[in-house]
Amino acid sequence: MNASEGFPKVVWAAGTFCRRMFEVLARAGLARIGRLGTAHGPVETPALLPVVNASSLILTPQEMVEEFRAPILMTNAYILWRGEDRERVLKEGVHGLLGFPGPIMTDSGAFQQHVYGKVEVSNEDIVKFQAAIGADLGAALDVFSEPDESRSHAEAGVEETLRRSEEALQHRGKMALAGTVQGGRFADLRTRSAEGLSRLPLQIQAIGGVVPLMEAYRFAELAEVLVASRMGLRPDRPIHLFGAGHPIVFGLAVLLGCDLFDSAAYAKYAYDGRMMTAWGTRRVRDLKRLACACPVCRDSTPEALRRNPSLVARHNLHVSFQEVQQIKQAIEEGRLWEHVERRSRAHPRLLEVLRVLERHVDYLERFEPLSDGSPFFTGPETIWRPVFHRFRKRVLERYRPPGAKAALILPEGPRPYTRGYRRVLRELFTQADAHAIVKSAFGPVPVELDGVYPVAQSVFPALPGVEVLEAAEAFLQAFLRKGHFEFGLLWEGAESLEELKRRAPGSASGGEDLHRARAIADYQFGPEASDALFRGDVEFVTSKRTHRIRNVLVDKVHVLSLRASDGLYTLKWAGGQRIHRSVEMPRLRVVVETETAPFNRQGRSVFAKFVTDADPDLRPGEEVLVVDQEDGLVAVGRALMNREEMLAFDVGPAVKVREGSD
Amino acid sequence: MNASEGFPKVVWAAGTFCRRMFEVLARAGLARIGRLGTAHGPVETPALLPVVNASSLILTPQEMVEEFRAPILMTNAYILWRGEDRERVLKEGVHGLLGFPGPIMTDSGAFQQHVYGKVEVSNEDIVKFQAAIGADLGAALDVFSEPDESRSHAEAGVEETLRRSEEALQHRGKMALAGTVQGGRFADLRTRSAEGLSRLPLQIQAIGGVVPLMEAYRFAELAEVLVASRMGLRPDRPIHLFGAGHPIVFGLAVLLGCDLFDSAAYAKYAYDGRMMTAWGTRRVRDLKRLACACPVCRDSTPEALRRNPSLVARHNLHVSFQEVQQIKQAIEEGRLWEHVERRSRAHPRLLEVLRVLERHVDYLERFEPLSDGSPFFTGPETIWRPVFHRFRKRVLERYRPPGAKAALILPEGPRPYTRGYRRVLRELFTQADAHAIVKSAFGPVPVELDGVYPVAQSVFPALPGVEVLEAAEAFLQAFLRKGHFEFGLLWEGAESLEELKRRAPGSASGGEDLHRARAIADYQFGPEASDALFRGDVEFVTSKRTHRIRNVLVDKVHVLSLRASDGLYTLKWAGGQRIHRSVEMPRLRVVVETETAPFNRQGRSVFAKFVTDADPDLRPGEEVLVVDQEDGLVAVGRALMNREEMLAFDVGPAVKVREGSD
Repeated sequence: MNASEGFPKVVWAAGTFCRRMFEVLARAGLARIGRLGTAHGPVETPALLPVVNASSLILTPQEMVEEFRAPILMTNAYILWRGEDRERVLKEGVHGLLGFPGPIMTDSGAFQQHVYGKVEVSNEDIVKFQAAIGADLGAALDVFSEPDESRSHAEAGVEETLRRSEEALQHRGKMALAGTVQGGRFADLRTRSAEGLSRLPLQIQAIGGVVPLMEAYRFAELAEVLVASRMGLRPDRPIHLFGAGHPIVFGLAVLLGCDLFDSAAYAKYAYDGRMMTAWGTRRVRDLKRLACACPVCRDSTPEALRRNPSLVARHNLHVSFQEVQQIKQAIEEGRLWEHVERRSRAHPRLLEVLRVLERHVDYLERFEPLSDGSPFFTGPETIWRPVFHRFRKRVLERYRPPGAKAALILPEGPRPYTRGYRRVLRELFTQADAHAIVKSAFGPVPVELDGVYPVAQSVFPALPGVEVLEAAEAFLQAFLRKGHFEFGLLWEGAESLEELKRRAPGSASGGEDLHRARAIADYQFGPEASDALFRGDVEFVTSKRTHRIRNVLVDKVHVLSLRASDGLYTLKWAGGQRIHRSVEMPRLRVVVETETAPFNRQGRSVFAKFVTDADPDLRPGEEVLVVDQEDGLVAVGRALMNREEMLAFDVGPAVKVREGSD
Repeated sequence: MNASEGFPKVVWAAGTFCRRMFEVLARAGLARIGRLGTAHGPVETPALLPVVNASSLILTPQEMVEEFRAPILMTNAYILWRGEDRERVLKEGVHGLLGFPGPIMTDSGAFQQHVYGKVEVSNEDIVKFQAAIGADLGAALDVFSEPDESRSHAEAGVEETLRRSEEALQHRGKMALAGTVQGGRFADLRTRSAEGLSRLPLQIQAIGGVVPLMEAYRFAELAEVLVASRMGLRPDRPIHLFGAGHPIVFGLAVLLGCDLFDSAAYAKYAYDGRMMTAWGTRRVRDLKRLACACPVCRDSTPEALRRNPSLVARHNLHVSFQEVQQIKQAIEEGRLWEHVERRSRAHPRLLEVLRVLERHVDYLERFEPLSDGSPFFTGPETIWRPVFHRFRKRVLERYRPPGAKAALILPEGPRPYTRGYRRVLRELFTQADAHAIVKSAFGPVPVELDGVYPVAQSVFPALPGVEVLEAAEAFLQAFLRKGHFEFGLLWEGAESLEELKRRAPGSASGGEDLHRARAIADYQFGPEASDALFRGDVEFVTSKRTHRIRNVLVDKVHVLSLRASDGLYTLKWAGGQRIHRSVEMPRLRVVVETETAPFNRQGRSVFAKFVTDADPDLRPGEEVLVVDQEDGLVAVGRALMNREEMLAFDVGPAVKVREGSD
């Protein structure tokens, strides 16, 4: 288990300017759409903070508002502190100086340390300065860790950064303060650094020292740094990725949990004659035509862009903001993995990132909703997505075959899991004595589970490729080794059912509906809970049109409903009681403070603030039992978070209650 | 060899409205940027023709000009013929009716046949009508072949379509006439249909009967149809793909040789509340936000789009035109394969197309320039691109090892072909007795060829995946089986050079430069020409900075220059003479009419019109000998086309002459 569990509930310091500083509105794995509260209004995250340099404006803050609807800006406090505007900004405040009405974040000069080797200001002074000029969000002066520095050097930087973050908390005033994860390329140092920050009452968590990785296209290492950092960070605070200004990495960063980025790159690239796209960078001087629909490119020419860097800067910001919008849309539509997998084709070095995500699939799976969207195959890396990994894991651990000795396996390897094909298998399932298993591209699918998420919702090509074929074979072998069947039979396709029966001794027991209903419950709740649910006289209410199971009644009582959308169950109160009687704490439970339980008994949602514990195996979207601290059953409902999140969050609902005991 | 070779030179019918009807300005394989001449001005291709229905305008032709700069429109002549505007359009002409100043193409009603089963007009009448209303481009009434119809039915349709195309030529007047390839899903019928059209003096070649394939996401079959059709079509005429209105397929269609598309889909989708993107389709009612930078979406909201289909239509056209621009840019930058490979991740069924292209790589390779751009790996399909296929083929057929008995092979499979790695190999090459072969992801690379295109220009990820590893192993085995070496040695990496020498008997002969120089010539021109080039005293002029070969002198005469851009040779006149003396007709030759040869002797380009024959193994971009019909050496230069194209084209240069005999 990971160190991020069991965070103490931080009581916000008195100066916190906004009670609900950060709320999550929608999520997809670690990615989320959030609302960040500030004294200058709320900001929807993920958000891009364009960096403005007051003494050298390529675009004015007014243009940021009017043309780009930029909700929040960043400016460098160290440059202000050192420069001519110091007295003026202390008098007028940073909002006055920039003439920007929305929230402003300031940086501390840590990056200048990277560029110039050192800075001439102390942590205390720069934090006080940021607070004094009225920054909404500010940063402690962290020690920038270079990716190639030695371990001992990186370690010392982590310790010093933590010390300074703690020190900075004394001087932040009303400003929300960011502490920064450092640790160079060392994953364990990154995690340790993040854990240290998690223990401090900071408002923002930042990840630093990554610009050199991005500049050198070391994207796989960037991904390792992001995962390692995220593992130690609290999930209830926004995460800022310092210096991530190129839209090529936005999707990846959001997928790994980042909420805020700052971009000085739009301007730097523009001065250097480089146009950004979500697919990479192009030199303006190489362009024969503009192939972009942004307002700048539609009204301009390559010649005009060559002459005028501010046009390039505007283009760069347009595509950057568009990418942020597309990422939010992808989160809302359950398509973020597709988005990131597609974008990773921008550069072969970016494609390497997908192999990094594969290595961390166990961690990523903990945050993955039970069902979300229609997974589209984009390449061999797709089968390692958390959603398919979970499917294989649960089938391997929870599936119980219905008594047939032989598994009937499609011989020619995975093929698209089409409707027609499923129909054939279903027929075989009821008529032959062997039990049908589809060797699908993402793992063996027992025919009873062919309607559950993600099996029925996925779209795969007819020829998914050699790598996928080999993986499917390995998954199937693991499944058969597990000892579910005495032997596997390859179905030749042309054989008659009679021939199959001759070859396949043993017999499947019972009716199709019962098998299917129980197999789904095994998969969703585990065998123990499933047995509890189905103990007794089982009846089904089926759809008149599709003949599919809709409700499960046991001993005349409605215990489960099967959802058409994802082929999984909704748990009724009576079902919850059955599980509660038979399955031990903390399995399938969310524990709430006994004092607040009466609200939930009346059907109101469980707020994360009142959760004291939960089953670590629960995933967002799962059906849960809400119990009080004495394990009294309070309600049944749907989890919106996993345990780690429930324990960390101080705001927002953790369980949507469907039926309370009252 | 394919039937498309040796087309007769068609003399354009007297009524052709523009002498230079179609010229190719830039190319990438079968894809091209062209200039289509019409009486209403030229059109740059690939071009999208928005379909306007005069009686039901969702966007006016004026908006098409002002907002979209649409260079050309399409309208349906059958709808005009049948409708209320018939007399008016006969009087005012189609340009008057629509109030559009640019060229207009008309369709004949063939698609209405598909929709309604039949049409009430004869081929003759609708062609005469199109000519009478002043269409710049018009179509014969082809018989729409449904993808699932029987072979005999499709065959009959092909014959009837050919008959009608021939008949239509009698009635076209000054209108450029399109004949349409049909043949349903039968590849051989498609090719035969195309060959029939190629024999007729048509101005436009169209491909029809594909809308049902696109609507059902049968993209692999669409690709088969496009390849089979293209195999029979003349390369000197523009190819129109009827009904291809979704930007999701534009890249694929252009890659396979299409120049024109028409889109009624922008409007149909809009009425149906569907927004197009190059990545698929979204229902407006499902949208929570707009994530598009087009002028419509920037100024609108999902609610406004729901209420107003014309906004959706405008969005659809914006993204369609943007995709056309991006495709043109990709052609110019040598990135069209990347573009299509990336876009194919829009849908798993579209991804299947890449496997179809793999099957036709031999055909596609014939049109692929010798060098173009920097190939980026996007997935396992990348290694089957024509450019890598050619590399493997030439290494297998043309490479001659330098005398070492042992091949020294990198053991752990393909790794990124990095600069540092190449340096190590080069060292081994000169110091060890074994000969170094890199087992790269796209095939074995003898170390002498590590600078030639596409080896040095390609960018691959560190972990290209199981499928690529297996393919690399198979490529290497084929190379070793070819008998170049007595045995292969796996390099353990940690071994010293002394140990290696002990393990590797035999010795490499001669200096590094000579090996390298000859190996490149073997690869580029074949062993016979290479021997002719290097016979005698060889000297090198090398770069003072990089120490790389720049010029090759033999017996004191400059015969070759090595280009830094692609690591291949430019042929000097003296080199041409050496090859000409030793290599038989038609190898490496482009034959021009003896009468026009004097122009080329003076250094002027060879125009395709005057080419009588050429080496079928020549590819665009290759160094060639220009000879007259008696095989007298006229000039050396660079081919811009392959043989098939040189023989078909009546306009444009076929060889850029570098040095003529005079």
